[in-house]
Amino acid sequence: MDAGASQEEEIKRAKIDNGQQFLERLVPMMFDMIQDITCNRDSKVVNFLHPDEMQKRINFSIADGPCSNDKILASLKDVIKYSVKTGHPHFYNQLYGGFNAHGLGGALLTEALNGSQYTYEVAPVFTMMEKSVLGDMLKLIGFNDGDAMFTPGGSMANMYAINLARYQKFPVIKETGLFGLPKMCLFTSEKGHYSISKGAGFLGLGMDNVKKVKTDAQGRMIPADLEKQILECKAEGYEPFMVNCTAGSTVIGAYDPVEAIADITERHGLWLHVDGAWGGAVLLSDNLKYKVKGIHRADSMTWNPHKLMMAPQQCACFFTKHKDILADGHSANAKYLFQQDKFYDPSYDSGDKSIQCGRKVDVLKLWTLWKSTGKLQMAKNIESMFNCATYLSKLCAKTEGFRMVPGLENPECTNVCFWYIPPSMRGQEETPEWWARLAKIPMEIKKRMSQQGTMMCGYQPDGDRVNFWRMVITNHDNTEQDMDFVVKEIARLGNDL
Amino acid sequence: MDAGASQEEEIKRAKIDNGQQFLERLVPMMFDMIQDITCNRDSKVVNFLHPDEMQKRINFSIADGPCSNDKILASLKDVIKYSVKTGHPHFYNQLYGGFNAHGLGGALLTEALNGSQYTYEVAPVFTMMEKSVLGDMLKLIGFNDGDAMFTPGGSMANMYAINLARYQKFPVIKETGLFGLPKMCLFTSEKGHYSISKGAGFLGLGMDNVKKVKTDAQGRMIPADLEKQILECKAEGYEPFMVNCTAGSTVIGAYDPVEAIADITERHGLWLHVDGAWGGAVLLSDNLKYKVKGIHRADSMTWNPHKLMMAPQQCACFFTKHKDILADGHSANAKYLFQQDKFYDPSYDSGDKSIQCGRKVDVLKLWTLWKSTGKLQMAKNIESMFNCATYLSKLCAKTEGFRMVPGLENPECTNVCFWYIPPSMRGQEETPEWWARLAKIPMEIKKRMSQQGTMMCGYQPDGDRVNFWRMVITNHDNTEQDMDFVVKEIARLGNDL
Repeated sequence: MDAGASQEEEIKRAKIDNGQQFLERLVPMMFDMIQDITCNRDSKVVNFLHPDEMQKRINFSIADGPCSNDKILASLKDVIKYSVKTGHPHFYNQLYGGFNAHGLGGALLTEALNGSQYTYEVAPVFTMMEKSVLGDMLKLIGFNDGDAMFTPGGSMANMYAINLARYQKFPVIKETGLFGLPKMCLFTSEKGHYSISKGAGFLGLGMDNVKKVKTDAQGRMIPADLEKQILECKAEGYEPFMVNCTAGSTVIGAYDPVEAIADITERHGLWLHVDGAWGGAVLLSDNLKYKVKGIHRADSMTWNPHKLMMAPQQCACFFTKHKDILADGHSANAKYLFQQDKFYDPSYDSGDKSIQCGRKVDVLKLWTLWKSTGKLQMAKNIESMFNCATYLSKLCAKTEGFRMVPGLENPECTNVCFWYIPPSMRGQEETPEWWARLAKIPMEIKKRMSQQGTMMCGYQPDGDRVNFWRMVITNHDNTEQDMDFVVKEIARLGNDL
Repeated sequence: MDAGASQEEEIKRAKIDNGQQFLERLVPMMFDMIQDITCNRDSKVVNFLHPDEMQKRINFSIADGPCSNDKILASLKDVIKYSVKTGHPHFYNQLYGGFNAHGLGGALLTEALNGSQYTYEVAPVFTMMEKSVLGDMLKLIGFNDGDAMFTPGGSMANMYAINLARYQKFPVIKETGLFGLPKMCLFTSEKGHYSISKGAGFLGLGMDNVKKVKTDAQGRMIPADLEKQILECKAEGYEPFMVNCTAGSTVIGAYDPVEAIADITERHGLWLHVDGAWGGAVLLSDNLKYKVKGIHRADSMTWNPHKLMMAPQQCACFFTKHKDILADGHSANAKYLFQQDKFYDPSYDSGDKSIQCGRKVDVLKLWTLWKSTGKLQMAKNIESMFNCATYLSKLCAKTEGFRMVPGLENPECTNVCFWYIPPSMRGQEETPEWWARLAKIPMEIKKRMSQQGTMMCGYQPDGDRVNFWRMVITNHDNTEQDMDFVVKEIARLGNDL
């Protein structure tokens, strides 16, 4: 070996050693954080800094020269410290959260393998794993001969539904677009997720052409209003093509009545999509699946295992009962990637059914999580969260200063919606001014909550109901004691307001 | 503590221990695999199994009961064994690959933190990190006052461009859709990525309304043909709105001439998008950025750091020079998430600019990779891959049995396109039958390549050119010796055909 080659070898060796040292020092930092949040509920959910403080605290800028392991690991320590701990049992802020070691393991291995799913050739194991896992989920829905695809989030899955629904009605759209077609419209409840509107905008249908169907006091779509609006739209010259039925609405957790809506969509020849991104996991439990009774009559479904099943982010799926429509509606037949003269059966190549090209592997983390847990225990985990929600709603109803939002006393999903009324506001006439004052209480409490980092929970208005707390239980490890804590903590934080 | 509570504590403890044990056993398995592929080029890139063999080898099914750590780790050992090693230096199959410990570290920490980017509140560190990293990239493009967003892949970023380009022309599309509007069309070269067509289908514009502009022998868009087609489309009553200029085409690696195209788009008032998903990283090198000269004149750009920058999957970005258009064109103003009465400045909430809702954190892995490497060394890494491509093209030109595809003798990007002609076919008249026979050679070689697992490289036809090898260099650690290996290995595998 000449001197040059030997020097090159040395540089290469030093680089490998440096990388290995980085990983060897980083992994224990990660595991310490996990240990902290899973074994110590008193640990902080967040150390909140405002943007300008964050900017000063962490040196985000990338320099011309390399950054040493010491420096970058010191920064990553701060990244950990100031990031929100979504795996903490007192993180109730979003429709996902919690920690499962097997799920994380699957996610870590996904990163180490750094795969992408276009073809069987480049993702042989994950192609077969997807077939198996998605096949199990299809059976739970009742789409026994259907097809499915992981998507980057539930919003994208809902957009898949919109695109395929209109494709089924007018296949010509794929080639020649919406030009010259009658104005099309689709329906969702006024409490449905905003991705339906966003999707209609993105897909060229227009947000105004999403018709919002009225809901009852529990936030569920009123079938009679749906049918009325369909007829009105037809009379106005619209071409209705799809109804989105929400299974677990974002704020309230409402389940639209699938059977009654399916009667209507069948009568009018409309595509029925069930957005079960949030609440679809009731299909896993024999005791809860009545909430989506009739779902086998739908044409498609969105279901995010990263929500109630507690798979790591991002794990979302689109399902359809129509076996060929993902391929027919999405394929572009790029010859360089999906050529047919291959040495293996190219029917296993899933890439052209997606609207992505490279697609991150999302199945492994779900598989490790679900397989290690088992189907029966997974069902129990889902039920346990629903039980926590019921317990919390009863606790709020009987605790002084807490009031359940009217109509939502019995949560349908794990969303629990309530006001906290501080002592200074109790026993007074509830004038518009009183409500306006109550509307500001959550923000004040939230500020303290973030500063003290003891828990995280969201609030929002809903129609003419002023800002209320929306607790969501998404963590399989949550207990009744956690619910006790939530009530006590909100009262403690807001007691003097 | 009563007996019930103590038993509950015990079950909880056992679960935590079981999870910890799983991770403690899994992590070394991951690191062994990495050690193997980074330190030993003779290790296998793939252990290929056909679908039915894979099905028999790994028990994918999820049982009612839990699966023990022993069993699941045994399966994961097989998952590792039979997955393609995209980090292996001899993985030349896709437009990404390679291994960087710091990038992986960022990816692992991303999983451990399991964040999602909607609001500053829930992703404070990553919001500021995105601003910093994307800000640096915007400056490199010359969009100094622009805006940017991570997207789930380059296809999605291209769809962002299409949607915002048409929004700029007709803002009304967002609300009322394409109905009643003149037929719109957009332009891309015949060698551009298929996501432009797929996107036009998905966005309701129709795949036929993507007009394919002719390319020269090097695969670059011919500006004169672009202008001719724009005029023809206008004459036919179309409303042209956008030109996609490819910076690094998928098969050939061609760079369309940005300046000449910008002259045309400015003349006709069209949105200019540069799809630099693959080749955009030349912006990092003062020696290579001439390839996209004029890019600051574009309206938007796609650039995937998971390709030439070697960030782990998935790391793709959309950039635009128009500061407000992501917000204006995409926002749905969901009140429950993006309410304005917050205790911090809500202008940092990025969620509504995306068409996703939950969005995986993609910035950390890029930041750790780039920061640890430094800007100067990153530039050298990009240049080194281009040098490898030049070396390989010269090697192919002078090695018996290898022939560069005519016109592509001097690779513009790191794509090297060539035929291997086995001894039995050399020195013969090149009749149509001869070419038909040559077209079948790559598949035979690929079959052996996969069975032996020594390397992975793709092939495809292109227009009337029959199946040829497309080598792509995406790994910063590739050397001239690796290129020597590729040529020898393909010759070895195909010698007797």
